[in-house]
Amino acid sequence: MTAVLGPNRYGKAETRVVRVTRDGEVHRLKDCNVGVSLSGDMRDVHLTGDNSAVLPTDSQKNTVYAFAKKHGITQIEEFARLLARHFVDSQPAIRHARVSIEEYAWERRGPHSFARSSGEVRTCVVHHDQDGTTTVVSGLEGLVLLNTTGSEFHGFARDEYTTLPPATDRVLATAVTARWRHTTPPDGRTSPDTLEIYDFGESYEEVRRCLIDAFAGTHSLSLQQTLYAMGARVVETRPEVCEVRLALPNKHHFLVDLSPFGMDNDNEVYYAADRPYGLIEGAVLDDAAPDAGPAWD
Amino acid sequence: MTAVLGPNRYGKAETRVVRVTRDGEVHRLKDCNVGVSLSGDMRDVHLTGDNSAVLPTDSQKNTVYAFAKKHGITQIEEFARLLARHFVDSQPAIRHARVSIEEYAWERRGPHSFARSSGEVRTCVVHHDQDGTTTVVSGLEGLVLLNTTGSEFHGFARDEYTTLPPATDRVLATAVTARWRHTTPPDGRTSPDTLEIYDFGESYEEVRRCLIDAFAGTHSLSLQQTLYAMGARVVETRPEVCEVRLALPNKHHFLVDLSPFGMDNDNEVYYAADRPYGLIEGAVLDDAAPDAGPAWD
Amino acid sequence: MTAVLGPNRYGKAETRVVRVTRDGEVHRLKDCNVGVSLSGDMRDVHLTGDNSAVLPTDSQKNTVYAFAKKHGITQIEEFARLLARHFVDSQPAIRHARVSIEEYAWERRGPHSFARSSGEVRTCVVHHDQDGTTTVVSGLEGLVLLNTTGSEFHGFARDEYTTLPPATDRVLATAVTARWRHTTPPDGRTSPDTLEIYDFGESYEEVRRCLIDAFAGTHSLSLQQTLYAMGARVVETRPEVCEVRLALPNKHHFLVDLSPFGMDNDNEVYYAADRPYGLIEGAVLDDAAPDAGPAWD
Amino acid sequence: MTAVLGPNRYGKAETRVVRVTRDGEVHRLKDCNVGVSLSGDMRDVHLTGDNSAVLPTDSQKNTVYAFAKKHGITQIEEFARLLARHFVDSQPAIRHARVSIEEYAWERRGPHSFARSSGEVRTCVVHHDQDGTTTVVSGLEGLVLLNTTGSEFHGFARDEYTTLPPATDRVLATAVTARWRHTTPPDGRTSPDTLEIYDFGESYEEVRRCLIDAFAGTHSLSLQQTLYAMGARVVETRPEVCEVRLALPNKHHFLVDLSPFGMDNDNEVYYAADRPYGLIEGAVLDDAAPDAGPAWD
Repeated sequence: MTAVLGPNRYGKAETRVVRVTRDGEVHRLKDCNVGVSLSGDMRDVHLTGDNSAVLPTDSQKNTVYAFAKKHGITQIEEFARLLARHFVDSQPAIRHARVSIEEYAWERRGPHSFARSSGEVRTCVVHHDQDGTTTVVSGLEGLVLLNTTGSEFHGFARDEYTTLPPATDRVLATAVTARWRHTTPPDGRTSPDTLEIYDFGESYEEVRRCLIDAFAGTHSLSLQQTLYAMGARVVETRPEVCEVRLALPNKHHFLVDLSPFGMDNDNEVYYAADRPYGLIEGAVLDDAAPDAGPAWD
Repeated sequence: MTAVLGPNRYGKAETRVVRVTRDGEVHRLKDCNVGVSLSGDMRDVHLTGDNSAVLPTDSQKNTVYAFAKKHGITQIEEFARLLARHFVDSQPAIRHARVSIEEYAWERRGPHSFARSSGEVRTCVVHHDQDGTTTVVSGLEGLVLLNTTGSEFHGFARDEYTTLPPATDRVLATAVTARWRHTTPPDGRTSPDTLEIYDFGESYEEVRRCLIDAFAGTHSLSLQQTLYAMGARVVETRPEVCEVRLALPNKHHFLVDLSPFGMDNDNEVYYAADRPYGLIEGAVLDDAAPDAGPAWD
Repeated sequence: MTAVLGPNRYGKAETRVVRVTRDGEVHRLKDCNVGVSLSGDMRDVHLTGDNSAVLPTDSQKNTVYAFAKKHGITQIEEFARLLARHFVDSQPAIRHARVSIEEYAWERRGPHSFARSSGEVRTCVVHHDQDGTTTVVSGLEGLVLLNTTGSEFHGFARDEYTTLPPATDRVLATAVTARWRHTTPPDGRTSPDTLEIYDFGESYEEVRRCLIDAFAGTHSLSLQQTLYAMGARVVETRPEVCEVRLALPNKHHFLVDLSPFGMDNDNEVYYAADRPYGLIEGAVLDDAAPDAGPAWD
Repeated sequence: MTAVLGPNRYGKAETRVVRVTRDGEVHRLKDCNVGVSLSGDMRDVHLTGDNSAVLPTDSQKNTVYAFAKKHGITQIEEFARLLARHFVDSQPAIRHARVSIEEYAWERRGPHSFARSSGEVRTCVVHHDQDGTTTVVSGLEGLVLLNTTGSEFHGFARDEYTTLPPATDRVLATAVTARWRHTTPPDGRTSPDTLEIYDFGESYEEVRRCLIDAFAGTHSLSLQQTLYAMGARVVETRPEVCEVRLALPNKHHFLVDLSPFGMDNDNEVYYAADRPYGLIEGAVLDDAAPDAGPAWD
């Protein structure tokens, strides 16, 4: 029985950076949470504690702040790509970098005043490898959607433990976690210091709109059907996206039985349950999507 | 050494009720979390386990659902008042009821589709006593505000443990918890089943606007000054409010020292800290405010 | 309509201090979260932003660390008292200090190795006033207890919304939040720098034991009865405690209906529910307890 | 651009089951949170909403409860395996099942009384496939460990953003998330209804002991070295384990600078930071470990 080192990575998680841009009186704000994970030839540090290949996670944190100053933060995908390339290009022992960013949205309330606009979070994960490949996955978390009608669930398989009655009109609610892979990874041929060649901000807004519209506009026979409709809407509408992955908890809203009190409940009063919940996960791809590589790791 | 029973109350916490109203094609939605606390002559149940005075918390939960059906939920303050009166009026042993409600906001995305609009929560606490008095406190939680400039902090007291340098331009950020006491408690002279005589919805929107505007518009020499400005704005603008209580965590944004990297940091790159944080709490009252009674309990 | 300043306080919340004591090879560890709230003559800072009476919350944080070095941390009540007195005694504008501490427990796993032993937290709140009075409340949070039998609930009041069947054998579970007020406040006549005259550590262990034993040993007809038994056990057993306040959520465990599957469920399979939950709150006092003053604020 | 369905799965998450076993006066308790994820031929439900292949997640929940009654819950790995096999064997459309369980530990406080013993959670993930293969991964979360000395970090790579000074004596603290893959998957040749052929409970205790002992006993030059020592200790000591995966956040404890107050800080007073934190992830394998299959999914 001989122990050997398997896959490994290390880095600094949750570096909270707020970048203010001052255009005269009117300020702009970017509020991010950055995670860095580096991997490469890390055998020595694990086996003997020899740190000569280990760039401290503290330095990674410093790099986030210094790059925020030097390059600004426009789109999180761009900023993640800059960081990922930097670590791979500047550290001999590092062969691969994964940079993930969460962005918190603020709405303007004055020339230099802002209010956090939502519990929703924009996300990205960028991988960059020594071989020059880059993958970019964008996403969102905490988009909570609900339809008060237009959802059914019946005709399902039954077994000896099935007691669920069929439903022809139910509330359908979920908290969307969506991630989408970009077809043409911002390709690396341009200098990382040039302006972005691709509008990740517009792409984000349009994908988000597709997801919401498909949820709201699909008469649903199951949450799986809605999931597929949401993913397909994105893949078929947005040429820059080749794959969407969705995790949709079925946030059950149970009709309260009011009959003991002599009352009907014609789909008016619901109990919003916490646990357990259904969880539907799935991917929708362009049939010509290239191999994902490490994009989803 | 003889043990005696002191103040006590009991009830059902966190009854999650979603009320759908169907006006033809277009649906409306109210999403609430209701807490009930009852008190009265509860000596026997504590001392001997005699439950004859104890209305089960399960019945309280049922009442929330039945009332949501019967009366609908328009303004949470109205719904809380209905419930509080019901328990006091119908249960001989109950002398006092406290009903608290959190409301989660949704924005319309279609005739019967909605998206949760924010991490912000609207709140209320209503007390109703056997003697007929009612107090109504409205509020909000999770309103996160930030000014990128217009905030200073200097001229403070110093002791042997003081190392903080004076600041003439800092980020000021907070997550507002605000509660405000209504001057004219919806008075009880009208039947609880009639329509509300007072527009709590409009009041909420206006108080919220006052808080945001005062935060954004105050050139701040300290968070205490901002707190007072926010409370005073409400008390002086809204005749229906006689007292505001605010809890404002100072969500510190520390300027990152970039000098080791040969960079200036002219108020552009900040580290958003979690803990520890300053916490400023205070009340602002109309000088003619009536006694609060149990309003803040 | 004139706005005036009402009650207010300010301070540094959640200063996380870990104090290591090195007795040769064997180390000891105290892990605390300290909150400071100061009040006094703070009119100017609120009305005009004049900070001359405001000791920065940053200095309060520094004081926590400096005192941890200078005095060590033995019992959290002692450490809180030292801090509270310091702020009142050294700052002319401060008339009253409230210091709260949470302590996280670690168990030894080697001469200098430790494992967090529990989700349970030991707490205290100490008030010290310019008039020399000190109050000390100790407590705990997150003590989760469960009896699989020995709990009933029947004979309760019924109304038109009551559907709960009587129970003669149910699971009773709760997460105890307990706070207890000390009779003889460590009195202030001794120098704050001398060793403690009172063993808060032993008191804590004994009160905790009383709470657990009373929960486990009481055949319960209602959670209120159990609450009273827990509080009375402490008050009647521990002469140093004059009042106990308990908040006991009724963490409902519902018997699952297995009859659709042809199975009995003789109190064997339960669904552990999250929300809603009953919440029972109450105080038990020594009938000769002195006035509480600000102890519970 | 044609959308196609990619990998997908669905199931019921977070079914909270508490199983009481009554051996006369003395009761035993198992407290679990069960997640089920099923996959197979689910094309129709996604594309057309045809639910004929979809066993409702509600039925999955019912199965958890019915199996808890019928089979009891001894070791969570056994219970997960029973469930996984059941879904694959009984549902024609289901080709693969993943069952994950969290178990919460209770310590006895009386014949039928218990206290939650820790914030630590025991976990498992079992995969079962139509081809008869089963994989079993056991684990734990929330094991928080700390060494007050015996940890160094120096000799690391440096770049232009490196400011970290070398450390020869630091606090090392982490919250262990560990998962380990069993070499001989309880093999499937025995009836799922027979008693377990393998003592998962003893294995769990021994692996946990290895992890703690290796953390406490390793003089650490980096957290990576400690991670490897923890994994290797398990792989080399426990023949039933062929791979360990660890995620170790470096819960930084920063020495507080007390020099402004004229004090030394000889590794006595620390600030326990929340964010950012280092995150070290890695696997340690037996060099003869078989292919993992879906074990880690």
